[in-house]
Amino acid sequence: MKSLQRILASRPLRYPQVRYLSGLARLDASKTIIEKTTSPIAKLPKDQLVFGQSFTDHMVEIEWDAKKGWAAPRISPYKNLSLDPATIVFHYGFELFEGLKAYKDSNGNIRTFRSDKNMLRMNQSAERIALPNFDGEELMKVIDKFLVLDQAFVPEGAGYSLYLRPTMIGTSVGLGVGTPDKALIFVIASPVGPYYSTGFKPVALEATDYAVRAWPGGVGNKKLGANYAPCIQPQTQAASRGYQQNLWLFGEEGYITEVGTMNAFFVFQNEDGKKELATAPLDGTILEGVTRDSVLQLARERLPADEWIISERKFTIGEVKERAAKGQLVEAFGAGTAAVVSPIDRIGWKGEDIAVPVAAGNSGELTAQVAEWIRQIQYGETSYKDWSRVAK
Amino acid sequence: MKSLQRILASRPLRYPQVRYLSGLARLDASKTIIEKTTSPIAKLPKDQLVFGQSFTDHMVEIEWDAKKGWAAPRISPYKNLSLDPATIVFHYGFELFEGLKAYKDSNGNIRTFRSDKNMLRMNQSAERIALPNFDGEELMKVIDKFLVLDQAFVPEGAGYSLYLRPTMIGTSVGLGVGTPDKALIFVIASPVGPYYSTGFKPVALEATDYAVRAWPGGVGNKKLGANYAPCIQPQTQAASRGYQQNLWLFGEEGYITEVGTMNAFFVFQNEDGKKELATAPLDGTILEGVTRDSVLQLARERLPADEWIISERKFTIGEVKERAAKGQLVEAFGAGTAAVVSPIDRIGWKGEDIAVPVAAGNSGELTAQVAEWIRQIQYGETSYKDWSRVAK
Repeated sequence: MKSLQRILASRPLRYPQVRYLSGLARLDASKTIIEKTTSPIAKLPKDQLVFGQSFTDHMVEIEWDAKKGWAAPRISPYKNLSLDPATIVFHYGFELFEGLKAYKDSNGNIRTFRSDKNMLRMNQSAERIALPNFDGEELMKVIDKFLVLDQAFVPEGAGYSLYLRPTMIGTSVGLGVGTPDKALIFVIASPVGPYYSTGFKPVALEATDYAVRAWPGGVGNKKLGANYAPCIQPQTQAASRGYQQNLWLFGEEGYITEVGTMNAFFVFQNEDGKKELATAPLDGTILEGVTRDSVLQLARERLPADEWIISERKFTIGEVKERAAKGQLVEAFGAGTAAVVSPIDRIGWKGEDIAVPVAAGNSGELTAQVAEWIRQIQYGETSYKDWSRVAK
Repeated sequence: MKSLQRILASRPLRYPQVRYLSGLARLDASKTIIEKTTSPIAKLPKDQLVFGQSFTDHMVEIEWDAKKGWAAPRISPYKNLSLDPATIVFHYGFELFEGLKAYKDSNGNIRTFRSDKNMLRMNQSAERIALPNFDGEELMKVIDKFLVLDQAFVPEGAGYSLYLRPTMIGTSVGLGVGTPDKALIFVIASPVGPYYSTGFKPVALEATDYAVRAWPGGVGNKKLGANYAPCIQPQTQAASRGYQQNLWLFGEEGYITEVGTMNAFFVFQNEDGKKELATAPLDGTILEGVTRDSVLQLARERLPADEWIISERKFTIGEVKERAAKGQLVEAFGAGTAAVVSPIDRIGWKGEDIAVPVAAGNSGELTAQVAEWIRQIQYGETSYKDWSRVAK
């Protein structure tokens, strides 16, 4: 495996010139055409919100054509897509998405969290599967207009937000396997509460090695539809044994990668007295999570350096088990946009459970602290760098 | 890697009970509803056919619902699909397909080739991504009706056929990642000539290790959309260096797996005087091709056992290069439904070409022989087992 990784490092995928620099029409938010709905959708009460089940009045659509570039963005009433059955999105997996959330602050502003990271990743996902690039700031300006129009759908209160789903699909028609010459960006939005029905309560994970989510030279670090459907059958099996999600392992060593819907963080007590916050490194087999990056930046800045080590490193399920047995496993949590920060209280492995302490009741102490740090920035209570953007 | 493969072998994915046995409505061809077109599409001349670009008058649609089972099949005019933008096929890669061809024989019968294998594989693909199972013979009966209705679109002559594309997509609406509760099978059909614009002429492949098509524990042996989009960028790179397709390698050893659109066969001259026909084994990282299986069966039955060894074994690009240097590489070809049998005349590897002999002019001698064996069965000139089915 190391040798393969050397090959990959020495010969990375080379992408064609970014296509929005090619002289074709660029994605331009100032051209946005808005068609308002004449039949508004009723807003659901907060206690009836189910993740990704109800949507707002409108949606964004932006078409791309290899000969013309990006068409004028349209914001129009939420409606079905009408596509030829030979459209490549149905056959060859030409689809990618992003997930980000819009929050209502105490002044009624609508805020998004580090959306520049989502736009960058969306472009990286597109490049990997030969879909077109675009100017991320322009798409965010279109999304801002959409948010202002549908702001009444953003629920108020901690844990509540409007989940935004920017999606890109290949829309060329034809069964030959090749580079798409047509594509569509669409954005829909769903008012949501906590992702897990358990709320901010711990989840149980099953460490999984019999199926493999991602591998070097593959696409596990991109947000492609291709990475999700293959994980459902193992998720169903884990659920049948009482676990909500899989903790995906890699290789015969059993390296911990991620949870599929979240990156994974572990806190260990070291023998020198320091604590370590550890997560898997960005080696191509895990999604480069925005929440992951936020946790790492905040931890590095706010945790005392003489008490904490913040590590992006490879570690195995064997190490977690061994450290737990020695009383050195302090806590663990998942981090992702949908679930934000989600405490973990046990990990199934080879038919046994590794118990994970939850010292603060529903979570470990750092888990609760990190969740609160991020919440304050997301809801505009604390200003931090350029991480929160107000839609105008 | 061996250790990982042992893990996989000892703990295979377990699937839920096949759902068409569960008491819900089964896929039932006798319930098929046919709505004929009132605006027939003009048939293109054979020399204007491009693979997968034009379609027939009608299409098949069969809806599935977790609470009801399979609805009555419908054959109706070819038309767009209308789907909510939150449909899971656009987000999480819930899509799979099959490819098979219908041939017109000299009596005007429409014949399909080993369609039972396609139906079996389609069910296996569905199980792997938690889409529903169905009775494959019933779907073939529906397809037979479709073929009889649109038989005027089946072009005559060697190399010409009607390419059938049975497809299944997840049609649940909602952004939570979970098991689909709605699905749709649709079948469309495209009149086609030879897959490569070069016809029965050799193709050049680039051996590729910097990107990896499939992995043990992944889904590379299933016919999922997820396996295709990630291969386009490396294909574009190979094309920029003058190669039509990638020859996908695996692992630091450089094991030859497949071509993405075809399985790969090599003929070696052994030092004991025998020839060997070799292809990669079904280890989970290659598609289990119907044409691959047909080549192996025919070769085992029809080639003299005292002159030939037929091998499903692991071999590396290094072995191919070494045997070529010794004059022991006799020929090579790809095998798949779209291209049928496609000769190979060179393989790029680390910036150099491995020349592959084409003793019979456009191909090696065995390549031409195998292509002709299969053609005779496909077009009903030779009867062989139950490999050819007449649509009635």
